[in-house]
Amino acid sequence: MQFTFHNPTQIQFGRGQIASVARLIPRDAKVLVLYGGGSIKANGVYDQVAEALKAHQWAEFAGIEPNPTVETLDKAVARVKDEGFDFLLAVGGGSVVDGTKYVAAAACYEGYGWDILSGKHKVRQALPLGAILTLPATGSESNAAAVISRTATAEKRSFLAPAVFPVFAVLDPDTMSSLPDRQLANGLVDAFVHICEQYLTVPTGAMVQDGFAEALLRNLVVLAGQFDQRRTLEWRENLMWTANQALNGLIGVGVPHDWATHAIGHEFTALYGLDHAQTLALVHPALLRVCLAQKEAKLTQMGRNVFGLEGDGIANRTIDIIENLFRSVGVGTRLGDYQLDKNDVLLQVLTALEGHGMTRLGHQRDVDLHTVDAIIRKAE
Amino acid sequence: MQFTFHNPTQIQFGRGQIASVARLIPRDAKVLVLYGGGSIKANGVYDQVAEALKAHQWAEFAGIEPNPTVETLDKAVARVKDEGFDFLLAVGGGSVVDGTKYVAAAACYEGYGWDILSGKHKVRQALPLGAILTLPATGSESNAAAVISRTATAEKRSFLAPAVFPVFAVLDPDTMSSLPDRQLANGLVDAFVHICEQYLTVPTGAMVQDGFAEALLRNLVVLAGQFDQRRTLEWRENLMWTANQALNGLIGVGVPHDWATHAIGHEFTALYGLDHAQTLALVHPALLRVCLAQKEAKLTQMGRNVFGLEGDGIANRTIDIIENLFRSVGVGTRLGDYQLDKNDVLLQVLTALEGHGMTRLGHQRDVDLHTVDAIIRKAE
Repeated sequence: MQFTFHNPTQIQFGRGQIASVARLIPRDAKVLVLYGGGSIKANGVYDQVAEALKAHQWAEFAGIEPNPTVETLDKAVARVKDEGFDFLLAVGGGSVVDGTKYVAAAACYEGYGWDILSGKHKVRQALPLGAILTLPATGSESNAAAVISRTATAEKRSFLAPAVFPVFAVLDPDTMSSLPDRQLANGLVDAFVHICEQYLTVPTGAMVQDGFAEALLRNLVVLAGQFDQRRTLEWRENLMWTANQALNGLIGVGVPHDWATHAIGHEFTALYGLDHAQTLALVHPALLRVCLAQKEAKLTQMGRNVFGLEGDGIANRTIDIIENLFRSVGVGTRLGDYQLDKNDVLLQVLTALEGHGMTRLGHQRDVDLHTVDAIIRKAE
Repeated sequence: MQFTFHNPTQIQFGRGQIASVARLIPRDAKVLVLYGGGSIKANGVYDQVAEALKAHQWAEFAGIEPNPTVETLDKAVARVKDEGFDFLLAVGGGSVVDGTKYVAAAACYEGYGWDILSGKHKVRQALPLGAILTLPATGSESNAAAVISRTATAEKRSFLAPAVFPVFAVLDPDTMSSLPDRQLANGLVDAFVHICEQYLTVPTGAMVQDGFAEALLRNLVVLAGQFDQRRTLEWRENLMWTANQALNGLIGVGVPHDWATHAIGHEFTALYGLDHAQTLALVHPALLRVCLAQKEAKLTQMGRNVFGLEGDGIANRTIDIIENLFRSVGVGTRLGDYQLDKNDVLLQVLTALEGHGMTRLGHQRDVDLHTVDAIIRKAE
C-alpha cells in the first residue's frame, strides 16, 4: 500500500461559522462571491455572507446552474480577469463549488477554458477559493476535484488539481434548513455511492480505509431510516459531516477505485438532465448486479459489516438492500422512474460513452460498452 | 457541534517513501536531522535519509531520548540558532518527533525554552519540520502536539501549536522491521488509549467521530489478536495507519475529550521511568472502573460496537476485555507488574499531581486527587 494524502482545507463546522470567513479571507483581498439561484437570498445565507464580508471589497456572480456549464462559468472567468478579483468565495452546493474551482483555474490560464476538462491544460495554478456549503453531497468543499458540463456538446467532464483545494470550507448545518426533500435525499444517495466507488472493488486488507468506509455507510443507512428527522440539527450535522468525509480523499487512499457508475451516470445527466444522484441510483444497483463476480467479496463484506447479514447469498441481498435504500428516500432506481425508454437510452448512452472514449471503465477497466449495455437493460 | 479541523501535514505512506523527502524539503534549506539512539543506523533508515538528502546541505543531532528532555533538546536549539538551520527533519518515533517540535518552536523564541511547556510563552512561530516515522504510536507525525520532560524537576508537560504541524510525514512500514516486540505492543496500546481518551466520555450523537473511533478500535483488537503476524507488511501497514488516524485530530473534532489517563500516566513516567504506553495500560482500566458511572453509556456502546457484546453488564465486561487486551500483548496493567509499591505510588503521584496543579482532570473535571487515590488502589 502506497499513497500520498494531503488535504489542506480548513473545516469550519457548525452553527454560526459563516461569520468566520471575515478572518479567513485576507482583509486586502478583492473577493468575488459565486452562487447559484436565489435560494441563498431566501434563506438568510446571503445576508450572513454580506455581514461577514462587510470589511472586504467584494462583488457577486449569480446564476451558476446545477451541473454547471462552461458557457455560464466563462462569464465569471471574464469578470475575474477584467476586474482583478483575487479571492473566490463559493456559496452553494457541489455545483457552485465545482464551478468556482473551474473559474479559479481558468482565471490563471490564457487558453480556452475547456482545455482544463479535455486534459489539454494541466492546472498548476489557480486563484485561492473558499466554500460555504449549503447542500451536503459531493464533498467538493474539501477536495481537489470538479465536474463541469458543456451544453454545446452535451459533455460532462471532470478535472483534479491540488491547486483548487478550497482554502477553507464552512459547513453550517443551518444552511440546509430550506433545502427541499429531493435535494436532501439526493445528497444522501450521492454520498453513499461516493463511498461505494472507493470501497466496492476487491479486498486489499486496508483496515482503516474499509473501517472508515463502512462507518460512513452505516451512518447513511441510519440517516435514511431517520429521514423523518431530517429537519433536526443532529440529523443535518451528521449528514453534512458524513458526506464531507465520503469524498475528501481519506477513505480512498491506497485502495482501488471504480467510478464506472459516475462515468455512465454523467452521460444520463448530459443527455436527459437527470440530477447527479438520480443517475447514480439508477446505474449503481444495476452495475453491481452485472459486475457481481468481480465485486462479490467486497459486497459480502459490506453485507456483513454494514447491514449485519449472515448466511448465504449475501452479495445479492446487499445489492437489493442498497436499491431499496435509495428508493426509501424517494430516489428512483429504474429507467421507468424517469420515463426513460430503454432503446433510446441504449442508443444514446452507448454512443455518448464511445464518443467520449469511455469504453474501459471500472476498477479493472473491464466495464466496456457490452457491459454497459447489460447494465442499462438491468436497470429497466 | 462546532469545530475547526485543519490538518495540513502531507502524508507519504508506504515502502520506499523515504526517498520522497528529497523533493519535499526545499533544495536550498539547511537541514538538521534529529534522531534518537543508534537504531536508525543499524536498520538502514539512516542510510536512506542520507541518500535522499545528498543534494541538500545537512547535519545531524543524535541522542534524543524516550520521553525527550528539555536538557537534551536545548543543546539542539543552541546548534540551530548558532549554525542557522532552517528546516528540521525528525527521524524516529513519537519522542523524536515531539522533541523536534520543541526545537522548532524554541529556535524561534528568545526566552527560556521551558516557558513553552509552562504556558508562559504561546508558540506562534516555529521552524518548518518534517517527520520520518519509525515507530507507530503517538500520531505526533501529523499533529500539533508535543510532550516534553524536564529531568531537573521530574516534570512531563505538553504543548499544542499549529505552527509545529510537520510539513510532511513519511510512514514507511519497513522502518518498523527492527523494532522489538515491546515497542510494537506499546504502540498498539498507546493508539488504543488515544482513541479511548477521545471516545469514552459521554454520548453526543456524533456519528462520524464515533464510527471512526470504533473502526480504529476494532482494527487494534484484530491486530492484537494477530500479534504473531507482526512481522508481515500488512500488519505493520495497518498498525501504522491506524495509530496515525488515532491522534491526528479527526476522531476528536467537536466531541468531549478526557485525557485524565494521560495526565496521571505522565507522572508515572516522570517518577518511575515507565514507558508511556505502560503508564496508560496501568491507569486506564483502573480509571474506567472508578469512573464507571460517568462513562457507562459510552462503555456500553463500545462493548456492543467494538467487542460485539450483548446482554447485561456490558460496561464492566468491556473494561475487563480492554485490560486483557493490553495484557495479551505483554503490557502490564497492575502496579505489581512494574514492581511498584502502592503506598509509595500514592504518596508520590498524588504529591506530583497536586504540585503540577493537575487536580481537576477528565472530561467533566471531576477526577480530583481523591479519585486518583481510588484509581491507584484499583490498579493494585
